Amino acid sequence: MSTVDQSYLVGLIGDGITASLSPPMHEQEGREQGLLYLYRPVDVSALGFEGRTGQEQVPALLEYGRHLGFNAFNITHPFKQSVMEHLDEVDEDARNLGAVNTVVFSEGRSIGHNTDFSGYINGLREALPEADLSKVIQLGAGGAGSAVAYALLRDGAQELVLIDLDADRATARAADLQRQFPDRLIHARPHAELQEALTDATGFAHCTPVGMHLHPGIPVDRDWLHPGLWVSDVVYLPVETELIQAARERGCSVVDGGRMAVGQALDAFALITGRPAAADRVRSHFLELVAAQQAGS
Amino acid sequence: MSTVDQSYLVGLIGDGITASLSPPMHEQEGREQGLLYLYRPVDVSALGFEGRTGQEQVPALLEYGRHLGFNAFNITHPFKQSVMEHLDEVDEDARNLGAVNTVVFSEGRSIGHNTDFSGYINGLREALPEADLSKVIQLGAGGAGSAVAYALLRDGAQELVLIDLDADRATARAADLQRQFPDRLIHARPHAELQEALTDATGFAHCTPVGMHLHPGIPVDRDWLHPGLWVSDVVYLPVETELIQAARERGCSVVDGGRMAVGQALDAFALITGRPAAADRVRSHFLELVAAQQAGS
Repeated sequence: MSTVDQSYLVGLIGDGITASLSPPMHEQEGREQGLLYLYRPVDVSALGFEGRTGQEQVPALLEYGRHLGFNAFNITHPFKQSVMEHLDEVDEDARNLGAVNTVVFSEGRSIGHNTDFSGYINGLREALPEADLSKVIQLGAGGAGSAVAYALLRDGAQELVLIDLDADRATARAADLQRQFPDRLIHARPHAELQEALTDATGFAHCTPVGMHLHPGIPVDRDWLHPGLWVSDVVYLPVETELIQAARERGCSVVDGGRMAVGQALDAFALITGRPAAADRVRSHFLELVAAQQAGS
Repeated sequence: MSTVDQSYLVGLIGDGITASLSPPMHEQEGREQGLLYLYRPVDVSALGFEGRTGQEQVPALLEYGRHLGFNAFNITHPFKQSVMEHLDEVDEDARNLGAVNTVVFSEGRSIGHNTDFSGYINGLREALPEADLSKVIQLGAGGAGSAVAYALLRDGAQELVLIDLDADRATARAADLQRQFPDRLIHARPHAELQEALTDATGFAHCTPVGMHLHPGIPVDRDWLHPGLWVSDVVYLPVETELIQAARERGCSVVDGGRMAVGQALDAFALITGRPAAADRVRSHFLELVAAQQAGS
């Protein structure tokens, strides 16, 4: 008799996610591994719940999803924080970070994880195994920035300087992180001091939307980049942002935004299936998907 | 860039359906056709909704299923009737029959169909293209019996005799059908007259659970079967019921219960995907599944 594949049903809950690359990334890796793996985007803003907000609907989507045979959900903007109170369990890193992007159902329980931070650091380590984390300047302290900062500290960064146009946000985030990592040097600096901060830094982590195809530009003066600096970007559309191109030209080692985008998917896939995903294969597929999306946009 | 398969997400809503063969039948045919086709059983009795009955939960399961990206649901006992009032549309045959076993979501609308009746008649016509429907005796006027009776009349049966141990049920069903098919001869007879009714019949449709592996036996005296009679069974576990074996030995042409079980799945698959399923391939897989289920029971 023919074997029935092991099957996985996964959803992505978020607002405005029709262009997400997670469904094809997960489904193709599942297929490559011989699994029956189906990944559905659930765009809450498009569902049109009468008289109820998306935030109110998320717990019901999770609960009915579980009843209907979903194995897991990815969670994205703007539900990564609010989803936490509706879970049976949240792992330690996601709890520290205050955000869940992956919910796995296991033996009737819902367990929250965060693969944004782990995906970032795994991507950094894969691209630059020897990256020096002695002094990292991070620009942008929003959602992606929180995951990146936590990842850098979790992976051993000694000094982390947070800079954001919203100085209060940077200050608050730095204070939070200092409490969690008391033996490191973590501080916020004004945006005007970015150039100065970079002079003796070993790394620069860019975590704002500047450089996206709909929001082009470069977040620093290219002359501020020096060969002693590794540079990472969270922007992945395009993968070759102006920042990544300028950094490479200036002799920096670089980590493009595709690393984090792929990294979070790899780690989610492994949590959901219990099997590692093939990093090179998924990155190569991701680059094809981005190219196709740019050609079509 | 690699092609992403067309994908289908389907559920089966019912009580006590853990042993259903629909999931593997659908998934394997989907795979054979190169589709990403996932079929999840949703056993309402196992979900443990606090303070609410399964009947109350079905509309929410349908609604959230649609939100979460399901393309369709099969519906089975005990929800085939109650589900109807929650649909945007019910096709004519399902309405006449008073039961829906397939709900397809199309452009935001939920549309109910019945492939039990169409599956029965297609299975009969595939096994016995020349089956004579001049005078058919049907034993059992419950859920499966309703679909079979409707199918036989819809396909041209001239005389239909309904017999049930519950004589009132047979009488009521016969009166219903007579209203729907005024130009046919439809009547109920007492169970004691089964032998007599069979003497000049051209077909015998068995629609009770007698002969199932957990309920063995034969619903008629084998001497009542004669070579002028075709005999169909709705029992498919085992496929070779005592009735089917006895009928074959007595020279009857036979239609085993696998025909209806496969037929309803074939028609549901076609409604869901817009593509025909391969009847021989699905039947052959179904026979493997039944054999494996019997070996394991």
